Amino acid sequence: MTLTQTIAAIRPLEMSLNTAARNRIDNKTKPQGSLGRLEDVAVRMSLIQKNLKPAIKNKSLVVFAADHGVAMEGVSAFPAEVTNQMVLNFLAGGAAINVLCRQQDIKLRVADMGVNADFAPHPLLIDAKVRKGSRNFLKEPALTREELTKALENGIKVWENQVATDKPDIVAVGEMGIGNTSSASAIIACATGNAPEAVTGRGTGIDDAHLQHKIDVIREALLLHRPNPVNGMDILSAVGGLEIAGMTGFMLAAAATGTPVVLDGLIATAAGLAAALIQPAIKDYLFSGHRSVEKGQIAALEYLGLIPLVDLGFRLGEGTGAALAIHIIDAACRIMSEMASFEDAGVSNRE
Amino acid sequence: MTLTQTIAAIRPLEMSLNTAARNRIDNKTKPQGSLGRLEDVAVRMSLIQKNLKPAIKNKSLVVFAADHGVAMEGVSAFPAEVTNQMVLNFLAGGAAINVLCRQQDIKLRVADMGVNADFAPHPLLIDAKVRKGSRNFLKEPALTREELTKALENGIKVWENQVATDKPDIVAVGEMGIGNTSSASAIIACATGNAPEAVTGRGTGIDDAHLQHKIDVIREALLLHRPNPVNGMDILSAVGGLEIAGMTGFMLAAAATGTPVVLDGLIATAAGLAAALIQPAIKDYLFSGHRSVEKGQIAALEYLGLIPLVDLGFRLGEGTGAALAIHIIDAACRIMSEMASFEDAGVSNRE
Repeated sequence: MTLTQTIAAIRPLEMSLNTAARNRIDNKTKPQGSLGRLEDVAVRMSLIQKNLKPAIKNKSLVVFAADHGVAMEGVSAFPAEVTNQMVLNFLAGGAAINVLCRQQDIKLRVADMGVNADFAPHPLLIDAKVRKGSRNFLKEPALTREELTKALENGIKVWENQVATDKPDIVAVGEMGIGNTSSASAIIACATGNAPEAVTGRGTGIDDAHLQHKIDVIREALLLHRPNPVNGMDILSAVGGLEIAGMTGFMLAAAATGTPVVLDGLIATAAGLAAALIQPAIKDYLFSGHRSVEKGQIAALEYLGLIPLVDLGFRLGEGTGAALAIHIIDAACRIMSEMASFEDAGVSNRE
Repeated sequence: MTLTQTIAAIRPLEMSLNTAARNRIDNKTKPQGSLGRLEDVAVRMSLIQKNLKPAIKNKSLVVFAADHGVAMEGVSAFPAEVTNQMVLNFLAGGAAINVLCRQQDIKLRVADMGVNADFAPHPLLIDAKVRKGSRNFLKEPALTREELTKALENGIKVWENQVATDKPDIVAVGEMGIGNTSSASAIIACATGNAPEAVTGRGTGIDDAHLQHKIDVIREALLLHRPNPVNGMDILSAVGGLEIAGMTGFMLAAAATGTPVVLDGLIATAAGLAAALIQPAIKDYLFSGHRSVEKGQIAALEYLGLIPLVDLGFRLGEGTGAALAIHIIDAACRIMSEMASFEDAGVSNRE
């Protein structure tokens, strides 16, 4: 599907099962509400799957990777070649996200949206490259409109050609791209109206002086491009990145088929924010995997109306928080599907 | 082993591997500290297992069940027979903890420490009954010293005769007992010096008037018995419960063999607090599974120096938060064992 067709295919959740789902979870053998947010997840998964016995069998996670022109401004603690090196680490199975996907039998793939390197073919690697890195958004728009559209449509193709064929019941998105917390913070600052210093953090671990520089770069870029804060395309073109646009396209395509998407930390949440600007109905299909140390994520989550499921102080990306959250969403589905009701079990309800 | 032998067998963690473990996690291909609290869990599991490649293969969870004399004071939203009914629900596989244990292949057992009912033999049921419920601690000590010692030693036997034989790499504790949040809050108020109103919550969901009554019952009981706040035995005898004492004995026995124990919510954390008063070295082997809605848990966690791994607004008990946390502890072990180092993967470290 084209981007336009994909956007048009996303439907807000059908709410006709909502009362039945809420009654079902309330009649399980436990005090009402005593499983907290797991109960809300269980109800939402029922609505997404249009089934009072939701289930997660096939799980997929895609790491979207790209380089960032803005990395040349010294906004990261790590050199830009780490993007390429980490892609090779993913393909070799040695990164954190490999470990967490193996733990739960989540099918992992890596989409090269724009890494500044050439890769040999590999079974886990999807070639979705638009160009070798975004442009330096301190000087010019990160992506031309043509490049942005291609990145979004390549993200849609990652879904259609590679992931959808496995019929996943849930997908998660993660990323790798040195410099991409600068891009994500810029997107969030623009869309939420927060000052850059309020939504910019230390990324991979920069010191105070570099943090101030990173904030200055974001502020100057937003003053230079003045993207329209309600226009996701405008923002992504000005200060986005190829892996962020790829994730945005991918999640729009997944939601268009009614598949829930688990966001990871700052960067994936910024992509979710861009997707929601493009098509607000996508919010019904998004889960926030984890609360990042990066403070910009909070502003984006508020916009999306999402509360993270995992809160362990992660700031790694790759989809690591999202992978752990899939276990919790799976638990919610099993509670909804398998647990006995007061009537089934012959247990007295409250007096 | 007797209680005295068990207490004497618990050793503080041997710290000789600490530097090597910290170096190992710091050299994984990720920014230092970027996996947050998962890294601390990974290091502690390495020290507990005395192995830089910690692993969790066998997992066990025991639900300790008992009735509480104080339930007759109207401190719960549910009738006392629910303890018995829920034990039958556990044995039939229909409760939340059954679902969450099946999800992760955690071996579940139920220890009857003092339910006010007779049960037919069942493969999942361990008969560790001391008496049919604790005494009403508003009128008299909840347990005589003999009953308390028997409950602690029965908890030790649950470990020795039933659980240890599976050689679990980790165990979790949960509970069922109508009235037991009153007992747990009383234990925590006494040991931490907090006022009853600061550590008493709504349990299964009582209203404001019943909450005030529950607080009054706890305050009066502590004034009546005046247990020594640094003496775990004294506190458990005065305001404890049979399942709480059973958990306390069980976790002391597990720690005596170097096995880590995952606490659940308010009641299991109160049992952990009692265990730490009896033998402070046990703290090295305890993990806090989840943050309960019950505010008393926070005071107990502060005493124990533990931060919960899961925070989803649960207030169910049974071990539900602990079960989910086992997944996170397992993830930490896998990260420590399987993830590549910068050197292994040829990835550049920070500039």
